[in-house]
Parts: sequence; C-alpha cells; structure tokens
Amino acid sequence: MIGLGNLGRAAARVLLRGGHPTTVWNRSADKAADLVSAGATPAPTAADAFAASPLVVVALLDPSVVRDVLADVGDAARGRAVVNLTSGGPEDARAHADWAAEHGADYLHGAVYAVPQTLGTEDSSVSYSGSARVHEDWRAVLDLLGKGSFLGADAGRASAFDVAVLAGMYGMLGGFLHAAAMGRAAGIDAAELTPALVSWLTGLFPALHGFAGEIDRGDYTTEESGLDMNRAGLATILRAGESLGVAAPTLRPLKDLVDRQVAEGHGAASLARVVESFGGGA
Amino acid sequence: MIGLGNLGRAAARVLLRGGHPTTVWNRSADKAADLVSAGATPAPTAADAFAASPLVVVALLDPSVVRDVLADVGDAARGRAVVNLTSGGPEDARAHADWAAEHGADYLHGAVYAVPQTLGTEDSSVSYSGSARVHEDWRAVLDLLGKGSFLGADAGRASAFDVAVLAGMYGMLGGFLHAAAMGRAAGIDAAELTPALVSWLTGLFPALHGFAGEIDRGDYTTEESGLDMNRAGLATILRAGESLGVAAPTLRPLKDLVDRQVAEGHGAASLARVVESFGGGA
Ligand SMILES: NC(=O)c1ccc[n+]([C@@H]2O[C@H](COP(=O)([O-])OP(=O)(O)OC[C@H]3O[C@@H](n4cnc5c(N)ncnc54)[C@H](OP(=O)(O)O)[C@@H]3O)[C@@H](O)[C@H]2O)c1
Ligand SMILES: NC(=O)c1ccc[n+]([C@@H]2O[C@H](COP(=O)([O-])OP(=O)(O)OC[C@H]3O[C@@H](n4cnc5c(N)ncnc54)[C@H](OP(=O)(O)O)[C@@H]3O)[C@@H](O)[C@H]2O)c1
Repeated sequence: MIGLGNLGRAAARVLLRGGHPTTVWNRSADKAADLVSAGATPAPTAADAFAASPLVVVALLDPSVVRDVLADVGDAARGRAVVNLTSGGPEDARAHADWAAEHGADYLHGAVYAVPQTLGTEDSSVSYSGSARVHEDWRAVLDLLGKGSFLGADAGRASAFDVAVLAGMYGMLGGFLHAAAMGRAAGIDAAELTPALVSWLTGLFPALHGFAGEIDRGDYTTEESGLDMNRAGLATILRAGESLGVAAPTLRPLKDLVDRQVAEGHGAASLARVVESFGGGA
Repeated sequence: MIGLGNLGRAAARVLLRGGHPTTVWNRSADKAADLVSAGATPAPTAADAFAASPLVVVALLDPSVVRDVLADVGDAARGRAVVNLTSGGPEDARAHADWAAEHGADYLHGAVYAVPQTLGTEDSSVSYSGSARVHEDWRAVLDLLGKGSFLGADAGRASAFDVAVLAGMYGMLGGFLHAAAMGRAAGIDAAELTPALVSWLTGLFPALHGFAGEIDRGDYTTEESGLDMNRAGLATILRAGESLGVAAPTLRPLKDLVDRQVAEGHGAASLARVVESFGGGA
C-alpha cells in the first residue's frame, strides 16, 4: 500500500483484515505505526514497498504526487500490478498507464465511491479501467475494497467517470452548504433542515434520469416546468438570500446560465438544456 | 384554485379526484379547459374564485404575482382560508400573511416538496406554517396534496425551509449538469453516468448529517478528510475539466471558498466550515 492518508489507511486495514500480508509505505512514516501493530510490514521507501509485493495499491493526494512517487520507484515497478486509487483526470490515468508500460508494469485505475469509513463495506464501490489482466488476477483482493466494476481497457475511462461524479458531488455539497447557511440565517438548525433536504434530493433522482435522457438525445422540449419556472425559482432564492444576508456564490452563476438560455429564447425548454452552456459538447 | 401552471393544474386535479367541488382561475383562461371537462368550475376573475370557496389554494409564478393577484381580489378575501403554495422567501410569506390579516382572511403558507407529476402521491410532502386553524380545519383536503407537517405560527418558517431546500436542490442540479457535461466531453452518456452519480450522492447523505452536526455546534475539527483533501480534489476536477474543454462556472467559486479557508489556516478542518463563508451567521 503506497500512501497512508485517510483512504490508504482504510484500504490497508481492509487488506489486513482480509488476511493478506501487506507492506505499507508513506512519506510521513509515523502514519504506519498502528497498521504495523495490526500486522503490516513497513517499507523504508516506495521502491522497497513495490519490491515486496506483486500487487501494489496506490492512494496519494493527487496525480502529480503519484507521478513523483512513481519516478522514485523507477525499475522496481517491473512485473508489478499497479492499482491506483488516486483521483485524477483521464489524461492523468493514461499518463500513469504509459509510465507503467514503459517500466514493465500493468496499470489499473480505480475510482473509489466510498468514504474511508465505508471502504470495504457494502456501501463501497470501485470502478476500474485499464489492465483487464490485473482486474482478473486480483479480483478476489480488489473485491475486499468494495463492489467492483470494469469499464474497459482505457485507463482514463474510470477517471473520467470519477471526475464527472466528483463534479456532481461537489455541486450537491455546495448546495448543502448554501442551504445550511440559509437555514441558519432564518433560525433553522442544520440538523432540522438536512432531513428535509435529503428527502427532497432523493425525490429528485427520477428527474435526473429524465434530464439524462434529454441530454443524450439533445432534445430539451418538455411538457413539464421548464427554464422560465426555474428562472423564477432561482430569482426567489437569491432574493430571499439577500434579505437573510446570505451570499450565493455557487448559485448565482447557475442563475446566469439559466438567464442566458431564457434570453436566447429557450424559456419553455427543460433545465437540462443548461448543460450546453458548460461546453465540451461531443 | 388560483393559478393553473404546472403546480396549480396538478393540485386542481388532485382536489377534483378527491371529490371536492373546485373552482379554478388562471390569467390565461385556456389552461382551465381540461380541468373544466373534469368537473371544475371556471371563475372569470380571481375575486370570483375567492368568493366561490371557503378554502383558496394559490400557486402562482412568484411572490410578486401573488401580491398583484391578491390586490385585485381585495375584500373578496374576507373570511377565506388562503393556502399559498407559491415559493418565496420568509419575508414574502409574512407580507402575504399581513395582507390576509388586514383583509379578514387566514393565511397558511405551504412549501411543496413534489414535482407536479408526484403531487398527491406518497412521494409528495408539504411543510406548512402560519395559521394553525387553517391547517387543522382543512387537514383532510390538504392531506390529499401530500404528507403534511406544520412548522408553527410564523408564516415565514415554511418559506425559509423552502428557499433553503431549494438552494440545496439547485446545488445538486448544477452539479448534475456539470457532471453530465464532463461525462459527455469524455464520451460517457448521461444515461450511463447518472446511476453512478445517484448512487454516490445517496452514499454521501450520512456525511451531510455529520456536517449538519458540525455546523450546529460550530466545531469543524475532524479526524476525517478535511479541506486540504477537498482542495486537492477540486483542483483535480477543474484541471480535468480544462483538458476536456468543460467550464466549471458553479464549481470554481466553491473552490475559491475552500482555498480561502485553507489560506486562513483551516486545511485540517471539515469541509462544513465553508458554511461560514456564505455569511448570514446567527
Ligand atoms: N478520502 C476519501 O473519502 C476518498 C474517496 C475516494 C477517493 N479518494 C482519493 O484518494 C486520494 C487520497 O485521499 P486521502 O483521503 O487518503 O487523502 P489524504 O488523507 O490527504 O492523504 C494524502 C496522502 O498523500 C501523501 N502525500 C501528499 N503529498 C505528498 C508528497 N509530495 N509526496 C509523497 N506523498 C505525499 C500524504 O502523505 P503524508 O502523510 O506524508 O502527508 C498522504 O499519504 C485522493 O486522490 C482522493 O481524491 C479519497
Ligand atoms: N412545478 C414544480 O415542480 C413546483 C414544486 C413546488 C413548488 N413550486 C412553486 O409553485 C409555483 C408555481 O409553479 P408552476 O410550476 O405552477 O409555475 P408555472 O407552470 O410557470 O405557472 C405559473 C403560473 O403563474 C401565472 N402567472 C405568471 N405571471 C402572472 C401574472 N403576472 N399575473 C397572473 N398570473 C401570472 C401563470 O399564469 P399564465 O398561465 O397566464 O401564464 C401560471 O398560472 C412557483 O412558485 C414554484 O416555485 C413548483
């Protein structure tokens, strides 16, 4: 296990609990102490850790740290199955896979959908792409981390899923923070507001599936409440926020995109049409 | 029923299905046609509709439209129980309640957590505040719209819940649109991405409850992944988005808030600390 941050430590614990001899390395060696007490073997360098095991799982801060650590590992990577759980963009994963190929290693990228506390429980899932061989050979071990799925040979594909899902996650988290600030300003505890929010977000999931179909078809005609209604709703929230003294740093730009769509004549179209304002069209 | 937009039409259908004689009014009279076929009585003016029924349900575009329509209704409101489902801020609901009091009417505000298609099903809920009497007297009818709860005598309270929850909703919707744009740019259909996103958002709900506790206590110390990790994650998403040609209009401001918290020395604190950057503190 390379990297003993919150995710790496959780992964090492899952591997140890599964009865697998586990060598661990972390830049700050002190983070290995309790894992060593639980049976892990500490490695003095990342290269030593690579040398110790046929399967090497990586969880570091970001792709540039992965790049630096791999550069130090160099030829010790030869023959290894490298499974990298570090979040990055598709181009990062492809660059890591290229590095692995040049160093005689196999590369599998894993996008973890779990928090450290849920890793290895049934609420945990991991999407993989890259080396099908690594995914096949090590499936029994990888399945300990969470429900796995394999998205194909392009190492970048799991990463593309990852960053897209993370973008969606931070939207919800930003919305939660905004909601909590609005509630607080109006004298509503976050503990009272959050169940109502969670229940309403859950109620909206079917609408997301509907929007997804519109986006894939590129057809935003709708019989239902469209951009005009959303524009009025966003204006209401912003106005209420102003009178409560709450800023809307993440919502105001969404309102601007909706306003622009309406100004371009799409007031009756579905909110999903705003995806066109993000660019990156196929 | 005053207002036959998507919500008002759905509400009128629910009332008719429940066997209640229903008078309807809408600025554009043509929207009443199918409801009249289903047994509703059309009223030529809003004042006529108020005169026709002891209970008047209002669903108009926004609070300023409600204000204008009520002004036209004037003394025809006397003795009426007015239930307003139009989204607005707490100060709007209080102003409507004041108007009602001045005109001898009782005012109950209702925040609808349903889309028109789910109104009146078990997925629909409505939070009320304002006149307890209206809520008691008309509970059997109101319960047709969805599971009701009463939040107290302040007409503004249901609205405060409403705008806070809506702010959270638009965060999630903005995140979904961003995610869909990222996926599309990487060759992933929204129909393929959305189930993964929905599953991950569901997995995060417990974290929202944890954040809520931190916000209410004002204590953001955490053993878990904090602002430093989120900052790295946000940077990864933005960088991946740039290489995919996708803009991040709603995410970039969140990253700025996280960066600012980290710059102020809170890198180890919980992401929930960002609520402080929205202002409106108690
Ligand atoms: N936590 C989650 O819920 C979660 C879930 C899914 C995916 N992920 C992803 O997993 C990755 C790790 O997350 P985490 O929560 O474990 O992060 P973390 O707790 O912040 O740990 C970061 C790790 O990176 C190491 N590191 C940072 N800079 C380094 C450098 N210059 N050289 C060598 N090592 C360095 C740290 O070592 P030190 O101990 O020496 O600082 C530590 O091991 C991230 O990409 C994250 O997006 C996390
Ligand atoms: N749709 C939902 O899912 C939902 C859920 C919860 C709450 N709400 C809230 O319910 C309210 C109504 O939503 P909706 O979806 O029904 O909106 P909508 O379909 O856009 O309907 C708007 C209604 O307002 C009327 N209106 C607009 N401007 C007017 C004016 N100047 N004078 C008189 N009437 C005017 C429209 O009449 P015309 O037909 O003549 O234009 C129509 O009846 C909004 O506050 C919304 O936030 C909606």
